[in-house]
Amino acid sequence: WARAVRGLLLDVSGVLYDSGGDGGVPIAGSAEAVRRIKASGLKLRFCTNETQATREKFVKKLQGMGFDISVAEVTAPAPAACRILKERSLRPHLLVHNDLVPEFAEIDKANPNCVVIGDAAENFTYANLNEAFRVLIGMEKPVLISLGRGRYYKETDGLKLDVGAYMKALEYACDVQAEVVGKPAKMFFESALAEMGVPPQQAIMIGDDIVNDVGGAQRCGMRALQVRTGKYRPCDENHPDVKPDAYVNNLAEAVDIILQQL
Amino acid sequence: WARAVRGLLLDVSGVLYDSGGDGGVPIAGSAEAVRRIKASGLKLRFCTNETQATREKFVKKLQGMGFDISVAEVTAPAPAACRILKERSLRPHLLVHNDLVPEFAEIDKANPNCVVIGDAAENFTYANLNEAFRVLIGMEKPVLISLGRGRYYKETDGLKLDVGAYMKALEYACDVQAEVVGKPAKMFFESALAEMGVPPQQAIMIGDDIVNDVGGAQRCGMRALQVRTGKYRPCDENHPDVKPDAYVNNLAEAVDIILQQL
Repeated sequence: WARAVRGLLLDVSGVLYDSGGDGGVPIAGSAEAVRRIKASGLKLRFCTNETQATREKFVKKLQGMGFDISVAEVTAPAPAACRILKERSLRPHLLVHNDLVPEFAEIDKANPNCVVIGDAAENFTYANLNEAFRVLIGMEKPVLISLGRGRYYKETDGLKLDVGAYMKALEYACDVQAEVVGKPAKMFFESALAEMGVPPQQAIMIGDDIVNDVGGAQRCGMRALQVRTGKYRPCDENHPDVKPDAYVNNLAEAVDIILQQL
Repeated sequence: WARAVRGLLLDVSGVLYDSGGDGGVPIAGSAEAVRRIKASGLKLRFCTNETQATREKFVKKLQGMGFDISVAEVTAPAPAACRILKERSLRPHLLVHNDLVPEFAEIDKANPNCVVIGDAAENFTYANLNEAFRVLIGMEKPVLISLGRGRYYKETDGLKLDVGAYMKALEYACDVQAEVVGKPAKMFFESALAEMGVPPQQAIMIGDDIVNDVGGAQRCGMRALQVRTGKYRPCDENHPDVKPDAYVNNLAEAVDIILQQL
C-alpha cells in the first residue's frame, strides 16, 4: 500500500495531537513525522473537520505544539461552507463555536434562510438548539448545512459528541437531510487533492476516524490508513463496511513505512 | 367515523392545554368536554408521552386548570419503562427531567447498564448529553430506552425539540437503535386500551400529533382524530403516510360529534 505515493493528506486531531480543554497534547513522534514528510519532497496537506476555531487560531495552536504547519496548508469546512453560502445567496443562522464565527465575517447573516451547524461544543445548549430548530422549521424548505458529520471525538477529559449527532437531531426534528461540508464528503477530499496537485491514486489519507477519514478517502479512490491513536477503538477493526489499506500504531510509524518505499 | 364508540383515549398536551413555562393554559372548551365524556358513560383514558413530571404532579397541574382527571386514569411512559427495567434487570443512567426522577425511585441505578432518555428539557445540556453518550459507548451492546420519540412540541413561548431529536443524536453517535416506550409504540396503546377495557375497534384516539397520536393509534386498529390545536400545523394535512379518520377544530368539537352519535 505504500508504493507510488506522491502526496499525503493528514487528519489533525487524533493524528497530530489529542485535543482537550487545555489546548491539547501532541502525539509522540508526530511533529518529527511532519518534518520528515516535508523533507522527503512528498506533497502534504492537512485535511481537518476542525470547526472549533478559525484556521489562523488552529494553526497557531499547532505551531505552539511544535508542528511545522501554515494556514495555506489546511483544508477545513468553514471556508468551503462560505463558498457555498455565497454561490447560493444563503444567509446563515450559525450554530457554531464562538471561535469559528470570524470565518463567516464577510457573510450576510440578516434574516437567515439556512442554518449552518458546526462542532459548537459548549454552545450546544438547549436554548441554542431550540433556536436553530425554530429557524429551520419556519422555512418552507429547510436548508441545513453541517460542517462534518462526525459521531464523536476524544478530548483529554473523555469522548465528546461531535456535530454529526446534533445534525441528526435537527434532521429528525425538521424531517430534512443536511448537506455535509467536510469529511467524508467527496467534494471536500477532491478540493484537498486539487490544492495539493496530486491525483487520488497517488495519495494516502491518514486518519483516526474509520468512517470519515478512511471510508471517505477510499470512496475518492485514495488509499487510507487508520492510526491507532485519537478516537481509534479496537472494535473499529471489525467495521462492517470500511477496511483501511493498513493499520499503523501512529503517524510516525506510517511515515517510516512510506519513506522507506520512496 | 363517530359510530359504535365505547372508549376515548385523549392526548393531553395540545389537546387539553398548551404547556408552557408558566404551567400552561387550558384550551377553550376542553375541561367541559372531559366532563361531558365522563357524564356520557363512555370509557376514558388519558394517554400521554409527558415525561417532564411525575404523574402525580402532572395530574395536580391539570386539576388546577379545572380538569376532572386522576392519576389512575393516566397512561404514561415512565411507569411502563420501570416495568421493562425490572423485567430485564436493567439499571438505568437517567437523562430525564428532574421532576420525573421520583418515578424511578424504586429502580436500582448503581453501575448502569442502560440509558433511559426522556424529555429532559433544561437538563439537555452539552455535559449531560456527553455523559449519557459515554455510558452508552462504554457498553459492549448499548441499550437505549427512549420515553417517546416526538420531534417537537409547542410551549407558550414557542416550539421546543422533544426527546426524539436527542434520541436520534445518541442513536447516531453510538450506532444503536433505541427502544421506544410511549406513543407511537403499539404496546403502549394496547396497555391503555386494556386498562380501559375496550377493544381497538371501539376506541378513538384524539391527539395533536399526526405521527405519534394518529399514526400510532391507527396502526393498533383504532380510529384517530387530529385536533387543530397544540402542535398541529396546516401542512400536517398533507402528511405522506398518515391520514386521520377526521380533523376537528378542537376537543370540544370532537366530543360534540361523538356524543351526537351515541
